[in-house]
Amino acid sequence: MRIRKSFLPFMGVAAAALFAAEPALAADAPVTETQFILNSINFLVFGAFVMLMAAGFAMLESGLVRSKNTATICLKNVALYSIAGIMFYLVGYNLMYAGVDGGFMGSLAIWGADDSAALAGDFSGNYAASSDWFFQMVFVATAASIVSGTLAERIKLWPFLIFVVVLTGFIYPIQGAWHWGGGWLAEMGFADFAGSTLVHSAGGWAALTGAIILGARKGKFDEEGRVHPIPGANLPLATLGTFILWFGWFGFNGGSQLAMGSAADLVAVANIFANTNIAAAGGLVTAMILTQLIYKKVDLSMSLNGAIAGLVSITAGPDTPSLGLALTIGAVGGLLVVVFVPLLDKLKIDDVVGAISAHLVAGIWGTMAVPLSNGDTSFATQGVGVLAIGAFVIATSTVVWLVLKYTIGIRVKPEDEELGLDRAELGMEAYPEFGRGSQFI
Amino acid sequence: MRIRKSFLPFMGVAAAALFAAEPALAADAPVTETQFILNSINFLVFGAFVMLMAAGFAMLESGLVRSKNTATICLKNVALYSIAGIMFYLVGYNLMYAGVDGGFMGSLAIWGADDSAALAGDFSGNYAASSDWFFQMVFVATAASIVSGTLAERIKLWPFLIFVVVLTGFIYPIQGAWHWGGGWLAEMGFADFAGSTLVHSAGGWAALTGAIILGARKGKFDEEGRVHPIPGANLPLATLGTFILWFGWFGFNGGSQLAMGSAADLVAVANIFANTNIAAAGGLVTAMILTQLIYKKVDLSMSLNGAIAGLVSITAGPDTPSLGLALTIGAVGGLLVVVFVPLLDKLKIDDVVGAISAHLVAGIWGTMAVPLSNGDTSFATQGVGVLAIGAFVIATSTVVWLVLKYTIGIRVKPEDEELGLDRAELGMEAYPEFGRGSQFI
Amino acid sequence: MRIRKSFLPFMGVAAAALFAAEPALAADAPVTETQFILNSINFLVFGAFVMLMAAGFAMLESGLVRSKNTATICLKNVALYSIAGIMFYLVGYNLMYAGVDGGFMGSLAIWGADDSAALAGDFSGNYAASSDWFFQMVFVATAASIVSGTLAERIKLWPFLIFVVVLTGFIYPIQGAWHWGGGWLAEMGFADFAGSTLVHSAGGWAALTGAIILGARKGKFDEEGRVHPIPGANLPLATLGTFILWFGWFGFNGGSQLAMGSAADLVAVANIFANTNIAAAGGLVTAMILTQLIYKKVDLSMSLNGAIAGLVSITAGPDTPSLGLALTIGAVGGLLVVVFVPLLDKLKIDDVVGAISAHLVAGIWGTMAVPLSNGDTSFATQGVGVLAIGAFVIATSTVVWLVLKYTIGIRVKPEDEELGLDRAELGMEAYPEFGRGSQFI
Repeated sequence: MRIRKSFLPFMGVAAAALFAAEPALAADAPVTETQFILNSINFLVFGAFVMLMAAGFAMLESGLVRSKNTATICLKNVALYSIAGIMFYLVGYNLMYAGVDGGFMGSLAIWGADDSAALAGDFSGNYAASSDWFFQMVFVATAASIVSGTLAERIKLWPFLIFVVVLTGFIYPIQGAWHWGGGWLAEMGFADFAGSTLVHSAGGWAALTGAIILGARKGKFDEEGRVHPIPGANLPLATLGTFILWFGWFGFNGGSQLAMGSAADLVAVANIFANTNIAAAGGLVTAMILTQLIYKKVDLSMSLNGAIAGLVSITAGPDTPSLGLALTIGAVGGLLVVVFVPLLDKLKIDDVVGAISAHLVAGIWGTMAVPLSNGDTSFATQGVGVLAIGAFVIATSTVVWLVLKYTIGIRVKPEDEELGLDRAELGMEAYPEFGRGSQFI
Repeated sequence: MRIRKSFLPFMGVAAAALFAAEPALAADAPVTETQFILNSINFLVFGAFVMLMAAGFAMLESGLVRSKNTATICLKNVALYSIAGIMFYLVGYNLMYAGVDGGFMGSLAIWGADDSAALAGDFSGNYAASSDWFFQMVFVATAASIVSGTLAERIKLWPFLIFVVVLTGFIYPIQGAWHWGGGWLAEMGFADFAGSTLVHSAGGWAALTGAIILGARKGKFDEEGRVHPIPGANLPLATLGTFILWFGWFGFNGGSQLAMGSAADLVAVANIFANTNIAAAGGLVTAMILTQLIYKKVDLSMSLNGAIAGLVSITAGPDTPSLGLALTIGAVGGLLVVVFVPLLDKLKIDDVVGAISAHLVAGIWGTMAVPLSNGDTSFATQGVGVLAIGAFVIATSTVVWLVLKYTIGIRVKPEDEELGLDRAELGMEAYPEFGRGSQFI
Repeated sequence: MRIRKSFLPFMGVAAAALFAAEPALAADAPVTETQFILNSINFLVFGAFVMLMAAGFAMLESGLVRSKNTATICLKNVALYSIAGIMFYLVGYNLMYAGVDGGFMGSLAIWGADDSAALAGDFSGNYAASSDWFFQMVFVATAASIVSGTLAERIKLWPFLIFVVVLTGFIYPIQGAWHWGGGWLAEMGFADFAGSTLVHSAGGWAALTGAIILGARKGKFDEEGRVHPIPGANLPLATLGTFILWFGWFGFNGGSQLAMGSAADLVAVANIFANTNIAAAGGLVTAMILTQLIYKKVDLSMSLNGAIAGLVSITAGPDTPSLGLALTIGAVGGLLVVVFVPLLDKLKIDDVVGAISAHLVAGIWGTMAVPLSNGDTSFATQGVGVLAIGAFVIATSTVVWLVLKYTIGIRVKPEDEELGLDRAELGMEAYPEFGRGSQFI
C-alpha cells in the first residue's frame, strides 16, 4: 500500500509497521539527518514546482476565455491560490491529517509547525514540518483551480471565492483524510498515489455540480440544441499554461513519493518522472490524431487537454507502470477528452476549458487503471474510493452551490455577462488596447 | 544575529565565532563534503528560481505599460539582468564582500572563483565559490528590476542602462556591504534576512528619486491636479509575472538561509517557504477586500501588487514569525499598497507599475516588523538601517540621475513619448497586428 | 576528456578506467547511496529545468511569427516535445547509448529501466536509470525545437511531425552516439560538454536543409532581391521565451556535469552556472550595442537572439573558462547573430526566428572555442566533430526532407499560406478577437 507518510506522526504503531516494509524507511535503521534533509528538499523543491501550476492554470484559463472575461479569471486564479493557503493553515491541514486514525476526518485546529524533535537530534519525523505543510497546501490549490476554469465567464467573483473557502478548508481536506490522512479508505487499501481522485476528480466533481447549477453561458447552446463554440482569446497563453502544468506535474507526482532519502526513493521518483512525461505525450498525440481523423483538422485546445488528461490519468499510479503502460494509460486519457468534451456539450453542460473531461473523467480512469500494474490494489477497492469521494464531493458541493445560489446568488446579471465580467465586476479590461474588446460576442 | 555567511571567508575569528552558535555550523564539527554539496545546491537551485524573477518582472511590467512601450520595457528588463551580472563580476561582488570587516565597503577588484581548498578536501568554505556568486548576483538584478517598472514609458533606453551600471556595480554593493558583507550595520545588529531593505527598498529609493527627477508621463496628471489612470495593455501577462515572482520568492527567501547542510537549516527553509507563501496570500486578499470596499470593484493590478507587497514585507524576517504573524505582516503590506498608490498619485509621483508602494514602502514595513518575532533585533537598530540605506541610495541615485539629466538627458522627446518608445527608440512594435497599436492615447 | 557517464553501464573496463581519473568517482571509493541519490536529483531537477525550455521555445516562436500562424506553431512545439519523448523511448535512447563502444551507433531496442543493482545495494550505476533517460530525453526535444522555429509559417503540420519522428528517433541519437554514447568521436577526444554541436548545431543543420528545400515565405524576398522584414506578432512572449530558455539552460549545462556526488562536482556545476549566465549576458549586450551602432536603433529580436547565441556558444565547454573568457565567448556569439541574420537574408534563406544563426553558427563557434580553455582538446579534433556531425545531419535531413517533399509534400498551398496556417490547418485562430487577425499581410 502506497499512502502518504504525512499522517505518520499522527498514527500509532500500526502505521509505523506499514512503512517498515518500505526500503526508504527500514524499520531497523533510524532516519539520518541527511535523509531528513533530502526528504525536506523533496517537499520544498517539488512543492515549488506544484505552486507554479497555479500560474499554469491561470494562463490556460486566460487563454481559453474571451478577452472580456480575462482579467476576472486571472484574479480568480491568484485569489483561489491565496485562499487555499490561508484555509489550509486555519482549518484544512489538521482536518486532513491530525488524528484521523482510520476514521473520517481529523481535528479542527489551526496548524502550527513543531520541529522540536528534529532540532534535538531525533529525525524520525522524516522531514521539516513546514515542508510537508507547504507540499500538501499546493495540492489543495490545484483542486480549486479546476473549478475556476469550468465555471468561467458567468460566475460572480465573491460567491466563487466563498465556494473556494469551503472547498479548500473543508471538502477537500475531509475526503483527503480518508486516504492520505490515513482514514478508512487508506485502511481498506485504496491507492491514489498523487491524486487522480483526491485532487483531480474531487475538483472535477465540484466543477461539474457547479456547472449544472450555474447553467451554461449565454449563447453557448441555442434552443434547437445546437452547440456554438466560443473560441478562447489567446491560445499561446493556453499553450504556455499547459507547458507549465506539465512541468509542475513532475513535482506533483514525483514529490508524492514523499521521500528522497534512499536510492529506492530515487528509483521511484525517476520512474515517476519518466512515466508522467510519456503519459502526457500519449494523451497529446492521441488527441491530435483523433481530432485530425474525426474533424479533419487538428484541434489545439483539445490536444492541450489531451496532454492534461494524460497527466491526470497517470497520477493515481505513476510509480508502478512500465513506460509502455504509462504511454497507454495517458493515451486513453487523451481519447477520453476527445469523447467527453462533445458529450458534455450534448448534455448542455458548459465547461469553458474542458476541465471536467480532463480532470474528472481522466481522474476516474487513472484511478481504475492502478491495478493494471500495482498488485496490491484491486478494481473493487479503487471503485469504492472513486464512488465514495464522488458522492461526498457531489453532495457537499451541491449544498454549498445551492445555498450560495439562493442567498447571494452565483450568476452575474445577463447584461453583465454580455458586457463581460472584467468591466462588470472589476471595472477594467484585460486588453484595453486590442481589437474589438468587450464589444465582441 | 542572522547575517549572510557569504562574507565569512573574508572575515576573521570574530565572524567564525558568530556562526559557531548556529546549529548548521557547530564550531566543533568540521563541514562535511555532503554539507558542502547541499549548501551549494541551495545556492544554485534557489538562485535559478530567483533568476526567473527577472522574467516575472519583465512580464509584470510588460502587462502594465501601454502596448506602444512594451517592446522597450522587455528590452530594458533583459538588458538590466545582463548588465547586473556583468557589473557584479567586474566590480560589485568584491565591493560588497571582500574585506569589508565592519566597515563601509569592500575592495575594487574583478571577482574570480577560488575553490582550491574544497578541491583539496577542506570544505570549511561551506559552498562552491561560484554558487555563492550566482546567488548574490541574481539579487542585484532584482533591485534593478524595480527601477525599470517605475520609470517606464518615458525614460530613454541608454541613460536608464547607464544608471543600471552604476546601481548594480556600485550603489547596491556598497549598501549591501554594510549588512550582508559584514559591515557596520551587521556589527550593529541590523537584521534583513533576504533584503526587504537591502534589495527592495534600495531599488525603491532609486526608483523614487528617478520618478521625481524624470517627471510624470504626459497625460497622467492634468493641470487641475486630477489623476488620469493609464491602464496596462495586457493583464494576463501581469498576472503571470506576479505568479513567477511569487515562485521565485521561495528561492529568494528560502535560499537566503544560505545553507542546507543540517536539519536545522531545513527546518528554517521550510518555515520560510510557508511564511513567504502566506504573507503573499495575506497581501493579495487584503488588497482585494480593501479595493472592493473602497472602490466597489476589485482592482486586479492593485491585488497583484498586494501579493508582491506581502512578499516584500516578509522578506526581512521570513524565518522567525509564526504563520499567523506572517499572514498579518503580509496583510499590512497589502494595505500599504492600497494606501500608497493613490497617495503617490496625489503627490504627482508617477509610478507606472506601483513598485514604490510594493517594494519601498512594504520593504520599510517588513524591516521594521522583524523585532515582532526576532528577539535579537530592535526597532531602533532596524530604523537606523532603513534610514542609513535610504539616505545613501537617495543621495547617490540623485547624483547619478542629475548628472545623466544634464548631460545626455534622461527623458524622451514629447513626440517620441506620444509615438511610443517602441517605435521611437527601437523602431518596432510589440504587437504590430493588434488593435489600435501606437495610435492609441 | 569530458563525456557523458550515461554510457558507462554499457561499456566495459576501459570506460570505467576513464572515469577513475575524475574526482567525483575516485576509482578506489565505491559510489555511496548518498551519491546515487544526489546524482539522480541532478538529472531530475535539472532535467525538469530543460523540459521547461520546450515552453521557452514555444513562446519565443509564438512571439516571432504572425498571428495567423501562432496556434500552429504552438501545436508544433507541444507535439514535437511529445514525439521526442515517445521516439526516444521506442528507439532513440538505446540507439544512442546501448553498446556503442567506440562505434557509430547503439542497438535498436525499446528502452526500459533496470535498477536492480541499486535496489540490491550496489550503487555503481551512479544514478536511477530513468533519471538519466529523462535528462537525455529533454535534450532530444531541444534539437527538434530548433527546427520548428526556422520553418514556421509555411511548412505543413504532419510532414513536419514526421520529420521530427525521424530526427528524434534516428538522426539525433546516431550522431549523439558518436560522442555522448561513447562512439568514435569520444574515442578521438572530441569534447562537447552539453551540446553546442550535438544538440544545437545538429538541430540547426536540420533547420537549414529544411529552409533551403522548403523555400522562403511568400513576400519575404521580392524579385529584385530586396528583403521585406515580417515582424513577429507578440514580442513580450518572445521575451518570456528567451528568459525561460535562459533559466532552463542552467539545467542544460549544469546538469550535464551528470553528477552532484562530490564537492568537485558542485564546484564544476557552480562554475557552469556562472559561465552560462555571463555568456548569455555577453551575447545580449553585444547584440544590443551592435544593432544600435549599425541600425541606430536597438533591435529587440536580435538582442534576444544574441542572448541565445551566447548560451549556445558556452554550451560546448561551460566548465573550463574563466568568467572573463565565458563573457567573451558569449559576446562573440552575439556578434555572430548580428552578422549572420542579414547574411542568410542575402542568401534568401528564410529563417523565421533566427535559429540558424543562434543555434548553428554559434554552436560551431562554441565548439571550436573549447580548446581556448580546455587543454585536453584540440582545434583539429573539434573541427572533425563539427564537420562529421554537420555532414551526417545535412545528408540524412536532406534525404528525409526530399522524400517528404516528393511524396506527401511539405509546403502548404499558397492560398493557405496567405490565409494563415491556423485557419488552414487547424481551423481556428490564435487570437480571434484581436486586431486585423488573418486579414493582415
